[in-house]
Amino acid sequence: MKKNDASYPIMAGRKLFTAGPVREIRSVLKAEARGSAYMRTDDFRNYTKALCTKLQAVLETQNPVLLVACSGTGVMEMAVVNTHPQMALVIGNGHFAHRWAEILDSHGFPYHVCADDTYAGVEEYYRHDGSKYTYDVVFGTFCESSTGRLLSEIPKISERIHRNKGIFVLDAVSGLVVNPLKTDEWGVDMVISCAQKGFGVAPGLSIISPSDRALALCRQRPCTSYYFDIARYVEDYQRGSTPYTPPVSLMHALDKSCDFILRQGGKYIQTCAKRTGELREQMKGLGFSITDEAHLGNCITEFSVPDAWHKAGISCDAIVSRLRVMGYETVPKDQKSFRVGNYNIFRAEEIRDFVSAVRTVLRSMERNLQAH
Amino acid sequence: MKKNDASYPIMAGRKLFTAGPVREIRSVLKAEARGSAYMRTDDFRNYTKALCTKLQAVLETQNPVLLVACSGTGVMEMAVVNTHPQMALVIGNGHFAHRWAEILDSHGFPYHVCADDTYAGVEEYYRHDGSKYTYDVVFGTFCESSTGRLLSEIPKISERIHRNKGIFVLDAVSGLVVNPLKTDEWGVDMVISCAQKGFGVAPGLSIISPSDRALALCRQRPCTSYYFDIARYVEDYQRGSTPYTPPVSLMHALDKSCDFILRQGGKYIQTCAKRTGELREQMKGLGFSITDEAHLGNCITEFSVPDAWHKAGISCDAIVSRLRVMGYETVPKDQKSFRVGNYNIFRAEEIRDFVSAVRTVLRSMERNLQAH
Repeated sequence: MKKNDASYPIMAGRKLFTAGPVREIRSVLKAEARGSAYMRTDDFRNYTKALCTKLQAVLETQNPVLLVACSGTGVMEMAVVNTHPQMALVIGNGHFAHRWAEILDSHGFPYHVCADDTYAGVEEYYRHDGSKYTYDVVFGTFCESSTGRLLSEIPKISERIHRNKGIFVLDAVSGLVVNPLKTDEWGVDMVISCAQKGFGVAPGLSIISPSDRALALCRQRPCTSYYFDIARYVEDYQRGSTPYTPPVSLMHALDKSCDFILRQGGKYIQTCAKRTGELREQMKGLGFSITDEAHLGNCITEFSVPDAWHKAGISCDAIVSRLRVMGYETVPKDQKSFRVGNYNIFRAEEIRDFVSAVRTVLRSMERNLQAH
Repeated sequence: MKKNDASYPIMAGRKLFTAGPVREIRSVLKAEARGSAYMRTDDFRNYTKALCTKLQAVLETQNPVLLVACSGTGVMEMAVVNTHPQMALVIGNGHFAHRWAEILDSHGFPYHVCADDTYAGVEEYYRHDGSKYTYDVVFGTFCESSTGRLLSEIPKISERIHRNKGIFVLDAVSGLVVNPLKTDEWGVDMVISCAQKGFGVAPGLSIISPSDRALALCRQRPCTSYYFDIARYVEDYQRGSTPYTPPVSLMHALDKSCDFILRQGGKYIQTCAKRTGELREQMKGLGFSITDEAHLGNCITEFSVPDAWHKAGISCDAIVSRLRVMGYETVPKDQKSFRVGNYNIFRAEEIRDFVSAVRTVLRSMERNLQAH
């Protein structure tokens, strides 16, 4: 794996501190390059079953974990068109909660958006609407990758939803693997996620894991998609198969990633939390601020520049551009803030190197700062 | 790339003579293992534009070639929900023509199936229905991977469809790359295909290429999918982007594959035709028969055993199982026939080795044959 291959200028030596796709570790990359297998054999069906069992362990669930060839948005739509809500509630603010709303809109399903993602916020919505709306389906976002905010109080929220006979769908695209998610214990009815964030696999493979309650609802409702019809996936799942050709190379990579994660056990999430803490402390040491730090998950941080810097002409767009020149990919948000992702196991020195690069960028902008 | 890696029992030394996924050549596999890139950068947008330009050259079209993370069935549904037919015609027999019908059914769009895939067959349908049905959308299958049959007379069929102001959608999942497809010259309005057949890339990346006429129709019609809404893909295409995270590692592989194909030029298809001819001749030499050989494409062949063998207890299921033990994956069809795929550039000796393996299998069954 040469660092500088002229035929891959865009990848040569890039260090991904983005909110996905994220860096793949070497053993995962190697697994992807093993070549395709023919998937209509008993061997491959057994392999698929074993992979799904590993995914159940990662999700802490006994529910089936279905493999779907699409991006995270694909399985979001899959959750919507199969539950076919009569009245939905979308919890939380931020970009991906907005996507739930867009998908619901595009299908003409009615919904409310609850901008307060706490239990109290959700409870208020139930009270506010009295018996008028029962919210048969509630959509939440585990980790808002536009802000890094983690949905807390999930067990209480689930319980509230179940009390009104609703089902709880959780977009765990961004938070899974790097934050604890006890699907069954917490009463989440449908988890969706994908390979290219916490799992650290290339994009293209998504998962959807429905509870019996969720499947019972889906079976009562019409499904407006052929490709995303959950009943077909569940039927094939029982025999270790998928209705359409699965992304086999990404399955190999995901399998390797699950092995790595499960071998580490609880230590994996502890290390993610530790490195994220180090990143945040060191960046605050440079002068950046972080909003609502207590509610953030272990993978995404939005760093903001002080007003004084901003007035002095230091924009986050410029910081991101200069970091890119140094080989670091981060995510521009606006002039005042940018986002940094540290999925996977980053080493302490990788975090230090990154912060050191940011320091270098700031120094090169010092003239502006001093002029003020 | 070790042949026998205990952690990948299902792939160790397998030789894929299937109808997809197919064998990936080494440079394509290596490209897949380069790791992910962050796709919201100018570099990646330029890279995507360059890849789409190469795909245009392969498809012989000036139309946009849109990248979609899904299997081939996903882009089939994309074609259906965006053209939203008022009265469709499905051309051809076989498994994947049937899938067009299933998708149309699942959305409640009316259609006819024309089992005769010649121009005369199509013309008969137009005549038969007089002015009652104009067939605003006609769905065809370029190469029926269940039989290997290639749709011929495409230019005449296109012209007939256009005369009635319809648009022509072609499922080229199986036939593209290994057979000539002159999209623009032949008047095909929408080509769909995917990476895991002729391109020899792992599954998970599909393409859809709409003409201006096709897009104009899609814009008039409602689209019942969010993820598969073609207007979003076209909008992002103009700036080298995709609305949702694309499968970047498969894009790297597809890019390498396009380079390989385009470097060979016309010689690529000639070699495919030559190897396929060798395979067919050698298998006929063993006693297998091939139906309708003159109408077959360059990648799939259905080989049938003579009735006498079948009566003697030689089943194709058994042949496929024994070939599997020897490392060869082929596709069982029924007791009397099995399918063999030879996508990509197979070398003459690979074809010979395969036929020799089949001969060995037949010899081991000789006792049954002699008993008869």
